[in-house]
Amino acid sequence: MGIKLVRFQQDDAIQWGVLEDELYIVNGSYRTLRDILTTGMEDVVTAKQTGQIVNQSDITILSPVTDDANIYCQGTNYSAHRIEAGFSQQKPPYNLLFTKAPSTLTSATANIVCPAHVRLLDYEIELGIIMKQDVTEAVVVTEHNLKDYIAGFVNTNDVSARDVQIVEQQWFKGKSYRGFCPTGPYIYLLEDGEIDYLERLELHLSVNGETRQQVKTDQLLFKPTETLTEMSSIFDLKTGDLVLTGTPAGVGLRLNAEILGNIYDNSIPYEEKIEAFYNSQKDNGYLQPGDVMRLEIKSEDGVIDLGVQENKIVQAVTIK
Amino acid sequence: MGIKLVRFQQDDAIQWGVLEDELYIVNGSYRTLRDILTTGMEDVVTAKQTGQIVNQSDITILSPVTDDANIYCQGTNYSAHRIEAGFSQQKPPYNLLFTKAPSTLTSATANIVCPAHVRLLDYEIELGIIMKQDVTEAVVVTEHNLKDYIAGFVNTNDVSARDVQIVEQQWFKGKSYRGFCPTGPYIYLLEDGEIDYLERLELHLSVNGETRQQVKTDQLLFKPTETLTEMSSIFDLKTGDLVLTGTPAGVGLRLNAEILGNIYDNSIPYEEKIEAFYNSQKDNGYLQPGDVMRLEIKSEDGVIDLGVQENKIVQAVTIK
Repeated sequence: MGIKLVRFQQDDAIQWGVLEDELYIVNGSYRTLRDILTTGMEDVVTAKQTGQIVNQSDITILSPVTDDANIYCQGTNYSAHRIEAGFSQQKPPYNLLFTKAPSTLTSATANIVCPAHVRLLDYEIELGIIMKQDVTEAVVVTEHNLKDYIAGFVNTNDVSARDVQIVEQQWFKGKSYRGFCPTGPYIYLLEDGEIDYLERLELHLSVNGETRQQVKTDQLLFKPTETLTEMSSIFDLKTGDLVLTGTPAGVGLRLNAEILGNIYDNSIPYEEKIEAFYNSQKDNGYLQPGDVMRLEIKSEDGVIDLGVQENKIVQAVTIK
Repeated sequence: MGIKLVRFQQDDAIQWGVLEDELYIVNGSYRTLRDILTTGMEDVVTAKQTGQIVNQSDITILSPVTDDANIYCQGTNYSAHRIEAGFSQQKPPYNLLFTKAPSTLTSATANIVCPAHVRLLDYEIELGIIMKQDVTEAVVVTEHNLKDYIAGFVNTNDVSARDVQIVEQQWFKGKSYRGFCPTGPYIYLLEDGEIDYLERLELHLSVNGETRQQVKTDQLLFKPTETLTEMSSIFDLKTGDLVLTGTPAGVGLRLNAEILGNIYDNSIPYEEKIEAFYNSQKDNGYLQPGDVMRLEIKSEDGVIDLGVQENKIVQAVTIK
């Protein structure tokens, strides 16, 4: 069994813990995920032997990924989601990459604030991958050395304001509102031999108890080996960075050639475009204030279990 | 006069300096731009009095922005560039935002490596803004408090692989190859009363001595006041983060409705699409190995001068 690494707040102090039957405090002070992965693994491994047990009712669980991390994301990386997003079903000729701002990181139980002007708030369950080492040059990542690059897995939800993301075309802004990346409740740090579970994880997301997204990770089009190989050929990755591997079908967003044609037509005034887009989407089950998303990722045999996220949508308070 | 803050390497040590008639070493050890702006300003201000002079022929100037920074960018933010990029001339209804990977940061004199598969390498001179404080909630940035948010200005070049950026549609990847953001040679830290120069800076970029881009910053469509206000309403900004304010006309990229229609048509095979795009662009003066870009930003009255960048294009060595 791997290690479930938790970051939590008790009174004013932020600490790390290891979750087993109890939550054991990790000795030492580590400000960032990168710090603890780089210099604190001995304290993590020995937490159960040396650590104090913390009363879980006294603490607030935080995102285990800290906001010094970069968040790199893959788009349209499951076939059925490609179709609903207006693409062809096949594995595409390129790996679509974008980013989310680090301040999107929030906890597995935080309320998600829908910005006042956003009418099409959507969810995207994704398997998150935590980088194990700095990568500063092109490397070839294979099934054999993948375990050297991936420290562990984490639940993530790539929350998206579709009326911003799609109409403005560059996805960064619509996916980067504060709190738009619930992460955790913990990072599952892989034990030797467990990397093969990457292909055997089941993702499940429901809204108010109704299943919306469900897929197994063997359906990923660009595998992490291929994706990390490509990323390493372009930019640096750092220990503790987070890679979101893409979402399966079942989101609110539904695009087709006609809707996209409207978006791309620069002769249509913006207000008209956004109203047409809203009308094409509004009956698709987008998130509303009060809705609760529940999200789980685990292997069928129960060996790997990334825990449960439950995040409620709340409307932004408009300040006059 | 403000302070010209330099980051440089001498032997194996990376240090900070203040450039005046001589280059004065800043006392203290600061790993990141964020560190020195947050805790080292006293050492910066007193460098000339207390510091040792360094022989400029013995050092290598580095990017003054360090790779812990986030790089937030504005697209299509000058009218004449909007037209060549296939948009309407007017200030658009939204501020187009995207990011570059931090490992794009390189020095003002570094060679720029054109990736082996990239045939449409382009330049974009941009005024870079350095954040002076952490911003963790929505703020209203005005002409009066702008000086509290901007520490200084820096030359930047948003180098772009157009055949990746435009064909893949999400801009992050095509703008994120290592070294695609020459920054510096120094940050000009503003003195009291100098913030108004933000509207009076002249940008000039040449390739092999031929002027390609030339504009004054009063032509910016979304001003930094408006942009920082909007960014603060969406995501956190940190001291030392870099905001690229957009490029003026004169780049290689030329788009129109027909070219964009091809890009957006998901029924056209990728290889065909990329060839058609290449053919539509190849005679536009894109960068070739051996080309030298020269880039300067300064005020007409000479009070503010961000120095000179000179970067040569070299072809990637393909490793078999």
